[in-house]
Amino acid sequence: MIKVGVVGGTGYTGVELLRLIAGHPQAELSLITSRSEEGKAVADMYPNLRGAVDIRFSLPDNDGLGDCDLVFFATPNAVAMHQVPDLLKQGVRIVDLSADFRLRDNKEWSRWYGAVHACPEILEQAVYGLPEVNRAAIKEARIVANPGCYPTAVQLGFLPLLKQNLVNTSSLIADAKSGVSGAGRGASIGSLLCEASESFKAYAVSGHRHLPEIKQGLVQAASMDVELTFVPHLTPMIRGIHATLYADLTVGQVDLQSLYEEAYATEPFVDILPQGSHPETRSVKGSNYCRIAVHQPQEGNRVVVLSVIDNLVKGAAGQAVQNMNIMFGLPESMGLEAIALMP
Amino acid sequence: MIKVGVVGGTGYTGVELLRLIAGHPQAELSLITSRSEEGKAVADMYPNLRGAVDIRFSLPDNDGLGDCDLVFFATPNAVAMHQVPDLLKQGVRIVDLSADFRLRDNKEWSRWYGAVHACPEILEQAVYGLPEVNRAAIKEARIVANPGCYPTAVQLGFLPLLKQNLVNTSSLIADAKSGVSGAGRGASIGSLLCEASESFKAYAVSGHRHLPEIKQGLVQAASMDVELTFVPHLTPMIRGIHATLYADLTVGQVDLQSLYEEAYATEPFVDILPQGSHPETRSVKGSNYCRIAVHQPQEGNRVVVLSVIDNLVKGAAGQAVQNMNIMFGLPESMGLEAIALMP
Amino acid sequence: MIKVGVVGGTGYTGVELLRLIAGHPQAELSLITSRSEEGKAVADMYPNLRGAVDIRFSLPDNDGLGDCDLVFFATPNAVAMHQVPDLLKQGVRIVDLSADFRLRDNKEWSRWYGAVHACPEILEQAVYGLPEVNRAAIKEARIVANPGCYPTAVQLGFLPLLKQNLVNTSSLIADAKSGVSGAGRGASIGSLLCEASESFKAYAVSGHRHLPEIKQGLVQAASMDVELTFVPHLTPMIRGIHATLYADLTVGQVDLQSLYEEAYATEPFVDILPQGSHPETRSVKGSNYCRIAVHQPQEGNRVVVLSVIDNLVKGAAGQAVQNMNIMFGLPESMGLEAIALMP
Amino acid sequence: MIKVGVVGGTGYTGVELLRLIAGHPQAELSLITSRSEEGKAVADMYPNLRGAVDIRFSLPDNDGLGDCDLVFFATPNAVAMHQVPDLLKQGVRIVDLSADFRLRDNKEWSRWYGAVHACPEILEQAVYGLPEVNRAAIKEARIVANPGCYPTAVQLGFLPLLKQNLVNTSSLIADAKSGVSGAGRGASIGSLLCEASESFKAYAVSGHRHLPEIKQGLVQAASMDVELTFVPHLTPMIRGIHATLYADLTVGQVDLQSLYEEAYATEPFVDILPQGSHPETRSVKGSNYCRIAVHQPQEGNRVVVLSVIDNLVKGAAGQAVQNMNIMFGLPESMGLEAIALMP
Repeated sequence: MIKVGVVGGTGYTGVELLRLIAGHPQAELSLITSRSEEGKAVADMYPNLRGAVDIRFSLPDNDGLGDCDLVFFATPNAVAMHQVPDLLKQGVRIVDLSADFRLRDNKEWSRWYGAVHACPEILEQAVYGLPEVNRAAIKEARIVANPGCYPTAVQLGFLPLLKQNLVNTSSLIADAKSGVSGAGRGASIGSLLCEASESFKAYAVSGHRHLPEIKQGLVQAASMDVELTFVPHLTPMIRGIHATLYADLTVGQVDLQSLYEEAYATEPFVDILPQGSHPETRSVKGSNYCRIAVHQPQEGNRVVVLSVIDNLVKGAAGQAVQNMNIMFGLPESMGLEAIALMP
Repeated sequence: MIKVGVVGGTGYTGVELLRLIAGHPQAELSLITSRSEEGKAVADMYPNLRGAVDIRFSLPDNDGLGDCDLVFFATPNAVAMHQVPDLLKQGVRIVDLSADFRLRDNKEWSRWYGAVHACPEILEQAVYGLPEVNRAAIKEARIVANPGCYPTAVQLGFLPLLKQNLVNTSSLIADAKSGVSGAGRGASIGSLLCEASESFKAYAVSGHRHLPEIKQGLVQAASMDVELTFVPHLTPMIRGIHATLYADLTVGQVDLQSLYEEAYATEPFVDILPQGSHPETRSVKGSNYCRIAVHQPQEGNRVVVLSVIDNLVKGAAGQAVQNMNIMFGLPESMGLEAIALMP
Repeated sequence: MIKVGVVGGTGYTGVELLRLIAGHPQAELSLITSRSEEGKAVADMYPNLRGAVDIRFSLPDNDGLGDCDLVFFATPNAVAMHQVPDLLKQGVRIVDLSADFRLRDNKEWSRWYGAVHACPEILEQAVYGLPEVNRAAIKEARIVANPGCYPTAVQLGFLPLLKQNLVNTSSLIADAKSGVSGAGRGASIGSLLCEASESFKAYAVSGHRHLPEIKQGLVQAASMDVELTFVPHLTPMIRGIHATLYADLTVGQVDLQSLYEEAYATEPFVDILPQGSHPETRSVKGSNYCRIAVHQPQEGNRVVVLSVIDNLVKGAAGQAVQNMNIMFGLPESMGLEAIALMP
Repeated sequence: MIKVGVVGGTGYTGVELLRLIAGHPQAELSLITSRSEEGKAVADMYPNLRGAVDIRFSLPDNDGLGDCDLVFFATPNAVAMHQVPDLLKQGVRIVDLSADFRLRDNKEWSRWYGAVHACPEILEQAVYGLPEVNRAAIKEARIVANPGCYPTAVQLGFLPLLKQNLVNTSSLIADAKSGVSGAGRGASIGSLLCEASESFKAYAVSGHRHLPEIKQGLVQAASMDVELTFVPHLTPMIRGIHATLYADLTVGQVDLQSLYEEAYATEPFVDILPQGSHPETRSVKGSNYCRIAVHQPQEGNRVVVLSVIDNLVKGAAGQAVQNMNIMFGLPESMGLEAIALMP
């Protein structure tokens, strides 16, 4: 059994992580910390966990984290970086679900996150936890930077095209739509049911924090610079991301369907749909799958990729558990076999 | 492994049953029949099952049903009763999720379902599959009549009061609210998103088919006649039933909280919440729990019980699997441990 | 033109009031105050008002309120009572949409609202602004206490029965369901889309502030004491209240349909639906109607009344404008003719 | 008063048209036809119209249409074209909300709509009813082809760029998201609440019928050929379209904000939001506005336009009334002043 600690488990990513850990046959939730909820039973906050999780929130400075085999950080950005160095020294392995270790360039990080990075020296050893790209490195990693939700959906959708140099890298557009849980459990007016339901809007068109993270991954795949327009939207539902990706083909003829099927043939959690399909976000609700369809409308030179994930699972907690499985030599799908809830 | 057949698995109850069977360690989906979808891969209809269910729909008259250990009927009402006698003769055990075998009185059944019952002689051996009431009989049953969704939530909420004769049995009111999946997957205008979302309404106030089923159970628990006003409502969400139950106490002082906690102390799927709680339907979304809270507002003589279930799980497919587990001597929670999806 | 001021127009009741005033041919929005939003253009906060409302929020202590013919208070409870005495002295007429002047008994008010009333001497002259009950008094009132949303739906549903002494007054139950806008625009976790959508729950079963307000009205109509169990619920939609009302008839035969039709025959905003109907909340979305249907299930002695309103219109801002029309001798429907938005 | 007839008013476009006509001071609903609902009171079908519309559906071959000044067709595609020639001969003016007269090229029409056009000779005199483009011609038109919902949002968003030749016309992408009411009131499984809520998907990526209509308008504005990738999506809400438009600028420096503000300076129903804005579809819910914001992310050469409408108002019935106003010399905003319902 892996002894697991969770720091900051009161948000949506946190409760999803608890749900997955509680159902994982080889992980044991050892402690969960929250400064604001110390002493409260986790199941009092999240009644769905009644009967499944019976521990209480403890203070974040609890020594217990050092006794864990693995600590997940489900904290706001710029928190984990203050605790990680110490825990690494104690031999604890880390999966950070926040953005602290996702960008390799700490100046770029500072520019987008508005803070000085507390441990830039650790960025180098942090492995970007997209298993479909970095599986081998994740296996050995002391610290894994769990990807953002948009970056997961967008990268998995674009990668086969970029790796094969099939598209004009200055033509990339990611028009992404997210359910409201992506905004977290903070009590902000914009996330109220009366504000966010029965409406649809774009946000952060001038620049979203996930842009540099996505670009970093695309540049690596393409082995050249890329230009990307990334427009996130808020869609009136709880879970799910749908990324609609556009790129201009630079080659005349290419069997896109085969390209995608082959690229992900051995991946346990990437499912390429049959030609002509339109994946629905609900087909992955509560599951760790990314479902993808690829189109070439009217046989033109523009390719359209549709990529869906559950932002809280493959886009956060599920991917974190997938990374844990890889890090500890477990079957990669362990604890992640749940079928999407439909309807 | 239990060889399982499913008749009529194209509706919401059906797909939920498939989801649960696919994740059940001791059940194996042997065949699924549908007249209209014959030959179609199940996962083409329900993409959430891709990778988990790889069989195709076959014709209902397929001999294969006779080879099953257990057949679930997830058919419209008045279908199962035509196939059940034959299957019983072949030694197949049955869990019928439709209403065909729920009422003991076939004249009452005819009155509410508008048809002559095809096999009234079998009604006697059919066991009403509410495990909290009939566990022993279910264990031995050849055919289990799986309860309706409203009847499950309402009966579990009222039973402790009635068994102890604590309330005026002519004062019972069940004000029940259901998500739209309760109306099934039929293409009816009333279930369109544009008709049923952003709105709330009562329906069938003059008399709903679940009324006689609920009364039958309450009469049995009370060992006397009861009068019940049952008003179902449609609430703009997919899953969940919330029953708000009212009854007039006939005794002066009673510790309702203890009464309920004791009544369900050993039940794996009935969870009595702490005093003063208000269960949310989402706390059971995708899970087999019934969560109940009991109130006595302003210390008056009226008791208010709040009872929530997921109509597709404890109100249908989950309870069916629970019945299967009991029938085949398996741990009652097997395959039903999934934690509710929240948010 | 009536010179209108609005105090505290940043919540949902406020923006709805602005929408109605902007479209009212005889009312002119003179000023709107908000301490927190001073200087901000109203239409920057509520883009739906772009092109229709071009003023800015000003400070609440602005002298301008004294120059108004009518001031609406759309403030949280316990605010209006501090400003009202002064404004009355200046000859300004008041419609208070908060609860400060709804209860005639200031001790009862203190018990439920947790504060000492600042001007109990004014309670006597405050008229409870339910036009269907108090039209004549409203006409002459200096200050109108605009009813709460639940109290409007519940009273309009119960009144015909109580006025005619047709029911057992200790048998009353109001099972009420509200959209989330009833909780206001405050940034509370419980009102987040991810908390309140796809779920249904009761709340405040032990006692809700609208209980004494409703009882006060029912007692007056019945001319005797009444016992009422009032259970409010949160339903996953923005607007609408559905009250399901239960009472035991004390008379053998009564034509309930005619009773209701006659009771409201001349009312511009109460619409009795044909026998057997089930009103939907969406049929009044954005409109000032209350739609009611009355049932006597299975010819028993229990009557079930279904009453729906838009909580922000007939349950708040629309009723406030209706009161204004009465106070100023205008046609009662002026500015309130808009048809409900459907779908 | 304009004597108005409506053919086929049972769908969502129809009921919205009735709502607008009922509130229009210079239009009088003379008759409404429906083959399937003949004899039924309109308000029995749409209770929101109770008290506002008191006529019944009559048969479509009713002579009364010939007595109207204006007939609106709110029929499925390929219906109006069979009745229009006769009505024109009788001197009736027509606004067709279906697609029958939108494409100038009848072969293109046949290709997308799968039928032979019944009156190609009339296509020439049909005026495409986008007032912002064709106001003068609409004024004189005998028959107006009311634009589709997507085409309205997309054209209004792209036109300023194309008219000034500021973008590469082969770079155009329209990523559009529609509420479910766009799919109509037909009882199709895909539009059920349980299928379409809590999910998001693209559809018809290979080619949607609105593509040729949009292209026709863009080509005309650009005075040259254009290439457009159009991807429609279904978003879980009732009303609203959000079009996110992408194009590559061919000029170095351009003040996009001024360009858009000037282009629509005198338009009553196009509202350019301040720089940096993100229009929400709810800001136009129930209103005839199109709200637009224009962005140039990271000062790159890609322009992003956000354009929102209510698909049933500016995208259908409201635009039809706007066209009627123009045709009959009325103030263009008459009957269309309603403020969007928010929240």
